[in-house]
Amino acid sequence: MMVQLYDDERIDFLLAKQNMRIIQSPTVFAFSLDAVLLADFTYVPKTRGKILDLCTGNGVIPLFLSTRSEVPITGVEIQERLYDMACRNIELNKLDTQLDMIRGDLKDMPARYGNRKFDLVTCNPPYFPTPQMDERNINEHLAIARHEIYCTLEEVIEACSRLAKSGGKVSMVHRPERMVEIIELFRKHRLEPKRMRLVYPKEGKEANTLLIEGTRDGKPGLKILPPLYALTSEGEYTSELKEILYGE
Amino acid sequence: MMVQLYDDERIDFLLAKQNMRIIQSPTVFAFSLDAVLLADFTYVPKTRGKILDLCTGNGVIPLFLSTRSEVPITGVEIQERLYDMACRNIELNKLDTQLDMIRGDLKDMPARYGNRKFDLVTCNPPYFPTPQMDERNINEHLAIARHEIYCTLEEVIEACSRLAKSGGKVSMVHRPERMVEIIELFRKHRLEPKRMRLVYPKEGKEANTLLIEGTRDGKPGLKILPPLYALTSEGEYTSELKEILYGE
Repeated sequence: MMVQLYDDERIDFLLAKQNMRIIQSPTVFAFSLDAVLLADFTYVPKTRGKILDLCTGNGVIPLFLSTRSEVPITGVEIQERLYDMACRNIELNKLDTQLDMIRGDLKDMPARYGNRKFDLVTCNPPYFPTPQMDERNINEHLAIARHEIYCTLEEVIEACSRLAKSGGKVSMVHRPERMVEIIELFRKHRLEPKRMRLVYPKEGKEANTLLIEGTRDGKPGLKILPPLYALTSEGEYTSELKEILYGE
Repeated sequence: MMVQLYDDERIDFLLAKQNMRIIQSPTVFAFSLDAVLLADFTYVPKTRGKILDLCTGNGVIPLFLSTRSEVPITGVEIQERLYDMACRNIELNKLDTQLDMIRGDLKDMPARYGNRKFDLVTCNPPYFPTPQMDERNINEHLAIARHEIYCTLEEVIEACSRLAKSGGKVSMVHRPERMVEIIELFRKHRLEPKRMRLVYPKEGKEANTLLIEGTRDGKPGLKILPPLYALTSEGEYTSELKEILYGE
């Protein structure tokens, strides 16, 4: 299999056991642990339905979810450079019968697909409010992925909500500092928070990652899953994280 | 020290190290682990200010907080029988210079004290919505402590908010299932959630207790403290819980 690599792109293993590989680039986009944690955490429809992944980047979440589900998975990415990388990742892993990518703005997706079309919508959105121009990351690719330049948190949640079927799920990864805002916006847009998991860098530290799943038009009642620790006290990946990352 | 005991009341140790003791009764009211967890979790003003504890029951939270703070602490209890037990607990522990108890309805406290009077308001409220009369706990003392018979969750949170100074804290213990509702009601009543801790019965289980602290008129930004496990995999209290319970 020949796949074009540009500039400083490289091919990394994603799930060693499944022999899945992923093209990324340290200067343009490399998937984060958070994306993998979301792909592990979320509910997935196994054999029926459709999945949409917003802010897909190089397509890491669709790649990962393809190991958990047989249903069609579409990724949406606004940046041409990352969209192109995501398309080549589908090709590299021979997943073009299950996965496809769309280049576009997530805010346009409800008009494109219509409301209530997906059984699951996932999103690893930008975490930080838009900074002043002079403090913004000078690498525009990274700035767009990290800051709310093209979409605010509410625009993301509103798009997720409109795209999900009634009874369908929306899963998101974000920072715990913004949990209050996320819960309020979920409820405002008729997504009832139903499952939550907190990730801690190691024992004795505050949580640094929030995983949350809501059900469109769901009934109230939240479950909080066991905590996940990323590192042992010796600073190595915990066995649970290794299993998530490498499928070991 | 002679203190009157009624019916099936007994005296238990609260914090063995401090030689603190507490009168309780299995049929009327025995303090729960949740109250102790709240008293351990909450911020306390150490030397200046005033603390109010709503739904104080037999006064377990004021007793516990007296070991962490020198400021005056008032407990409010609606049930005569428990109010009386709380008064005798003050007497038993010779804490009448710091602690006092009021018999009354928490909803009347803002009118009694005025708004914005306390540096900290704590509350371990009833957890369950009011059941139909025929499913209600036939022991009325326990029913009132457990079900929202005399106060709804919103009435509790509104009273806490009105009684707290601007910049003052409100700390509460509740069930994680109702986290979404609690966060919404905190924000509605100008309490910004700032600290949260989740308690898990043991490793690998879902959280069963939520500790949450808000600041009246505070700025957004939530911290999630390390998780607390109650029991080891062998079913014994963890060392962290023993330290909280016994001061060991």
